[in-house]
Amino acid sequence: MSSNGGEFRVGLLGRGTVGGAFADLLPRQAERIERITGLRLSLTGILTRTHGSFDEILDRSDMIVELIGGLDPARDYVLRAMRAGKHVVTANKQLLSRHGEELWDVARQNAVQLRFEGAVAGVVPVIRVIQESLAGAQIDRVHGIVNGTTNFILTEMARTGATFAEALAEAQRLGYAEADPAEDVDGSDAAAKMAILARLAFDTPVHFDEVRYDGVEHIQPDDLEYARELGLGLKLIGTAERIGDGLSVRVHPAFLYPGHPLASISGPFNAVTVESEAITEITMSGPGAGGPQTASAVLGDVISAMIPPASTPAAAQRLAIVQDVVSAFYLHLEVADEPGVLAQVAQVLSTHDVSVKSVVQKGLGDQARLVMVVHPVLESRFEAALEEIASLSQLLRAPPRAIRVLEEEFS
Amino acid sequence: MSSNGGEFRVGLLGRGTVGGAFADLLPRQAERIERITGLRLSLTGILTRTHGSFDEILDRSDMIVELIGGLDPARDYVLRAMRAGKHVVTANKQLLSRHGEELWDVARQNAVQLRFEGAVAGVVPVIRVIQESLAGAQIDRVHGIVNGTTNFILTEMARTGATFAEALAEAQRLGYAEADPAEDVDGSDAAAKMAILARLAFDTPVHFDEVRYDGVEHIQPDDLEYARELGLGLKLIGTAERIGDGLSVRVHPAFLYPGHPLASISGPFNAVTVESEAITEITMSGPGAGGPQTASAVLGDVISAMIPPASTPAAAQRLAIVQDVVSAFYLHLEVADEPGVLAQVAQVLSTHDVSVKSVVQKGLGDQARLVMVVHPVLESRFEAALEEIASLSQLLRAPPRAIRVLEEEFS
Repeated sequence: MSSNGGEFRVGLLGRGTVGGAFADLLPRQAERIERITGLRLSLTGILTRTHGSFDEILDRSDMIVELIGGLDPARDYVLRAMRAGKHVVTANKQLLSRHGEELWDVARQNAVQLRFEGAVAGVVPVIRVIQESLAGAQIDRVHGIVNGTTNFILTEMARTGATFAEALAEAQRLGYAEADPAEDVDGSDAAAKMAILARLAFDTPVHFDEVRYDGVEHIQPDDLEYARELGLGLKLIGTAERIGDGLSVRVHPAFLYPGHPLASISGPFNAVTVESEAITEITMSGPGAGGPQTASAVLGDVISAMIPPASTPAAAQRLAIVQDVVSAFYLHLEVADEPGVLAQVAQVLSTHDVSVKSVVQKGLGDQARLVMVVHPVLESRFEAALEEIASLSQLLRAPPRAIRVLEEEFS
Repeated sequence: MSSNGGEFRVGLLGRGTVGGAFADLLPRQAERIERITGLRLSLTGILTRTHGSFDEILDRSDMIVELIGGLDPARDYVLRAMRAGKHVVTANKQLLSRHGEELWDVARQNAVQLRFEGAVAGVVPVIRVIQESLAGAQIDRVHGIVNGTTNFILTEMARTGATFAEALAEAQRLGYAEADPAEDVDGSDAAAKMAILARLAFDTPVHFDEVRYDGVEHIQPDDLEYARELGLGLKLIGTAERIGDGLSVRVHPAFLYPGHPLASISGPFNAVTVESEAITEITMSGPGAGGPQTASAVLGDVISAMIPPASTPAAAQRLAIVQDVVSAFYLHLEVADEPGVLAQVAQVLSTHDVSVKSVVQKGLGDQARLVMVVHPVLESRFEAALEEIASLSQLLRAPPRAIRVLEEEFS
């Protein structure tokens, strides 16, 4: 069912932020995907509000990718695709949090795959991990920061002292908030996502209407100021947890102590922590939204439907293994306490094009130490410099020690 | 192939730390798994060094779970199981980092699943995420803390100023290091895991022998002290990254700046960060080792082989949705600057069994504020107290503001 003469044909519904990014990504990754799956991925058509026929696209496709969002006509399209025996990939949290049971029933009845990694936390693979990796663990609680807009707003308010309105305006300017941010800031977007996570984590039906939620509009700058004094950080937290024989699913602003795994998640990032007696806890984090990121999650779902489960494809290429790479280094020298030591060491480093970023010189006499961090350099060069420094035995009281420093900037 | 009259029969090889935990976990989760998969999971036999016949166990099983470790006879057993058409789940990093290509070839030829989530980072689902979720993204780099023993040792050295030998002894006392810790502390355990991750992330064969590695035995306490002054933390970092047309795979101690997603991973935890232009970066963290945790990852693999891909099973239960839960709260009151305000507020809280954890009283006159954090309490009680406080209008200059505080302790 899932292939047609070495081809795998995808029909796309919607060309908004995610749909457009998916339509761009697919042809760019098609060659790589063919190396992995043996199947050539092709786009059979794109249905937009004004162009295309759903029936024609359905007829020509092995799979439908639904990225139009909202309940109608998305629900109808997804049901018709599955009843026609086609796999469906969607990122539609509204639809799944309100009609999930019906859709999953129809998927099982028709033995098709219904995948939806993009519906929660963008490219952070919470759906697959809860549904597949953690199937062996009885989950006790899920905590999540599942709305990037509000996390950006709260991070900005804490960082700059801005009001909610100012931080929202900044989020809109940077593209982290929509022109109409209502569903993000009132907590209902996060509530839909938590309904889906709760359903999967606890094997029980959870409808959007059963999730209690509260947003961030009422947060004042001085709440964040006091929080800092109390050692707390503020996040919009979604929670799904077993309580006795029941389940609580809720979204609300909450303060976190610094040791909490979600406390360090800042800016537009998303993160989810899953707790279980057997596993203690695992945390996943990454960019929660954005067209290219969510499109990448959608494409991951598409590829999963193309290949047999848990098959490791033959290596698609043979990359040469590189031995000499660029690294920054920490360098620790126990030196003789005499003038000119730093100058001589600096001279040797300079000869090998090793450039010093920061230096700490400490102690006197037998305790004198020279500790520095050097800028990234080809390791072979640094090693040559190190060898030459080690040979300056009159200057050193012990062999030099070097440890790499990771210098990459992260967003 | 994968079922036999509503039963799914697993043969277990090995009864060490992970094998024993798996044998314990399986019967305890069998009922839950039957609800999810419709199949009853049973253990057909356990092969140990002194008991059992591999051929008899193979003959009676739909799947073999290999947890004996090492290369021989593990390699032979895994190959024979797959050639007999049985799925295999293993957590054997030595085997996969040295004979992976042969094993994956045989799996594909026999159309069986070979799953190995437990081989890297225990229950942190890095294998599945790289292999399945991120199939749509071209990965540029993988960074990992994939050895819990060394991460615990480095965390202890930084925290207490202990020497390597002292921290290792503490790790052994707490069960985070084996009696013979050689493969952990010399970096070779991490190197085997990075070979596997690199193979999957870059679709290219990577043999254990091609990984450069260095351990933590030579780290001195004062390296960590200087690092602190420079604002750096020390970790044993595995790296696999594309460099031009080649690939570098290596393991060595490295300093990290505080903003790095791996900088906050402490104690025996593992974490992996995957970077790609399309997705920016995602990070996964959790307990990296331990029998029950790894056994849980193995059981997740077993369940994945039992159910059709990406099928969301019908809800197995219907948990009642709980509305009233226990929370700690931050309470912000803009108060009249007069004696007895705190006493009156405290009295109201006490009446409703709400107990105060910490208080900040600040400002004078029109600026007077009373900010407190209360211990966890049933939300309905706190809300009743809040309502009563709000009614003390002669004491307040503005309505009270309350925000929840997450109080859970994390390991």
